[in-house]
Amino acid sequence: MARIDTLATVGEFGFLDRLLPRLAGRRDVLVGPGDDCAVVRCGGRPVLITTDALIEDVHFKRDWLTPRQLGYRSLAVNLSDIAAMGGHPTFGVISVAASGSTPAAELFGVHAGIEAAARAAGMAIVGGNVSRAECLFLSITVLGEVRRRAVTRGGARVGDELFVTGTLGDGALGVRQLQCGERRGAAVQRYRRPRPRLKMGQLLAEHGIAAAMIDISDGLLQDLGHLTKASGVGAEIEVDALPRSPALRRLPQLEALELALRGGDDYELLCAVPRRRVAALERLRRQFDCPITRIGRCVPERLGIELLGAGREVHLRSEGGGWDHFVNRES
Amino acid sequence: MARIDTLATVGEFGFLDRLLPRLAGRRDVLVGPGDDCAVVRCGGRPVLITTDALIEDVHFKRDWLTPRQLGYRSLAVNLSDIAAMGGHPTFGVISVAASGSTPAAELFGVHAGIEAAARAAGMAIVGGNVSRAECLFLSITVLGEVRRRAVTRGGARVGDELFVTGTLGDGALGVRQLQCGERRGAAVQRYRRPRPRLKMGQLLAEHGIAAAMIDISDGLLQDLGHLTKASGVGAEIEVDALPRSPALRRLPQLEALELALRGGDDYELLCAVPRRRVAALERLRRQFDCPITRIGRCVPERLGIELLGAGREVHLRSEGGGWDHFVNRES
Repeated sequence: MARIDTLATVGEFGFLDRLLPRLAGRRDVLVGPGDDCAVVRCGGRPVLITTDALIEDVHFKRDWLTPRQLGYRSLAVNLSDIAAMGGHPTFGVISVAASGSTPAAELFGVHAGIEAAARAAGMAIVGGNVSRAECLFLSITVLGEVRRRAVTRGGARVGDELFVTGTLGDGALGVRQLQCGERRGAAVQRYRRPRPRLKMGQLLAEHGIAAAMIDISDGLLQDLGHLTKASGVGAEIEVDALPRSPALRRLPQLEALELALRGGDDYELLCAVPRRRVAALERLRRQFDCPITRIGRCVPERLGIELLGAGREVHLRSEGGGWDHFVNRES
Repeated sequence: MARIDTLATVGEFGFLDRLLPRLAGRRDVLVGPGDDCAVVRCGGRPVLITTDALIEDVHFKRDWLTPRQLGYRSLAVNLSDIAAMGGHPTFGVISVAASGSTPAAELFGVHAGIEAAARAAGMAIVGGNVSRAECLFLSITVLGEVRRRAVTRGGARVGDELFVTGTLGDGALGVRQLQCGERRGAAVQRYRRPRPRLKMGQLLAEHGIAAAMIDISDGLLQDLGHLTKASGVGAEIEVDALPRSPALRRLPQLEALELALRGGDDYELLCAVPRRRVAALERLRRQFDCPITRIGRCVPERLGIELLGAGREVHLRSEGGGWDHFVNRES
């Protein structure tokens, strides 16, 4: 019998690769599909566009979050993509689907959370639509602008240093705790209220520090894989340097490492900084609103992605192992 | 027991009204929620934004359309909103959700249909994302530009003449035939492949003919209700003037009238034309790519919406009776 490819065998990224062919030859498309945002020319200026969806029982369980937290989170994950290009969010539209029996108060709560996240980011929700569906579905599209230029995934060069903002692994730990019935604690809160690193992304972009940048939504290794692939480089990661929160440091070491490397839902930024710009990064530190930590460096592509640790050295295929809705995810 | 409001009792429009408060005071939001598109200022120029979703078993059944037809239709309904503002579509992003067992070929078919509709409209799909979900879900956001100014729903004045493009009722007839197992015929084809009236909208806007415009997606009476409410006018509709296709003319008269007045899925344009611009409309006729028919006129608001027919006269509440996913729809 002939094998029939499904979305599960093709995978999300395999699908997007084919779904969204490069828009070669269009001079008004500055960055096409495959980065955190697309960048198009609008009124002579570059405009960022990104879209992301949150679906009940796929991305969240209804009892993991209050409606307001869900709304906040649904916009925050889009804002993280704007942050990863060094952008300033401007406008958004929302597409909501819910069953007819959904309490109106619940949807007004979702909306209040979206509005709170929008206000905090200085942007405006300008439109939307509401449909019926069996499950709760939120799809948001956000536009943004850049003051200088958009930072893509593809600008890293051999020798660049790799930095991450904040701490790694907490979002995934929060999901695991929620799955086990926990409803409190720092990691759960981190899952519920991701902080898009807008200010950090803007500073790193506008001071010409980040040569390449991506947000860590699918796990460090997977998103690092996207950055190295787009840039045509490999990477060495010093596992002992990975920034871990107190919650993660309380876990057995290998478990914490696994979460920091492969856990999703962090919404931190990973960026490549040319060596000559590291001093500029250090000079900016007092303006940063979160820690930023050096975790490794870019090496020639043929070396792939290497993890360096105390006495350990592990080779990984550069596709990494992270989070692909159709291939890897357990739920 | 206290009554709990649900989405079903609040309704789609009641929900949107509360969900999307007016963005008073923001000078960069030229048209806020509640029109066919939002209009924002981007790089000094007005940019249209619209978003719409198609959901399996709500907006379509999987066996009503081929994947390619579904893709085409999903973009076309968004383009109709751009047409209603007199806009030119520029860029779009898509958000797809499907079950892991969905054949990849089916999704590539959907994508091919979206690309075909985009190509026909001279716009580019520049990004997207793919998620898992139990049902097939397509949400598309489209940006557009206007050469002159965006035509809103709110510009009609007492005395303006009302015109519609094409014919009315065919989309709803197509849905009814599909529900009865028919898979062929003009009305079915009309449902499957709506033609967004981009060129008509652009001509009516750029020649200063349409003072107000809306696309007829929820049925003439409901969408007329939106236009009259936004403009602060009433309307007289001459039911014998409503343009009907050969398929509709073969139906019993009352049945055809019901479809023409309340059927959704037409994606024609309804516009209000000041009397002094009717001659300009007539002069443009040879450039039009579809018929445009006078169906009535705007009257003072207190008169509501009146249907005038041979010997009949029916008063309607201006909320009209059309299509609201949560209140009226049978499926």
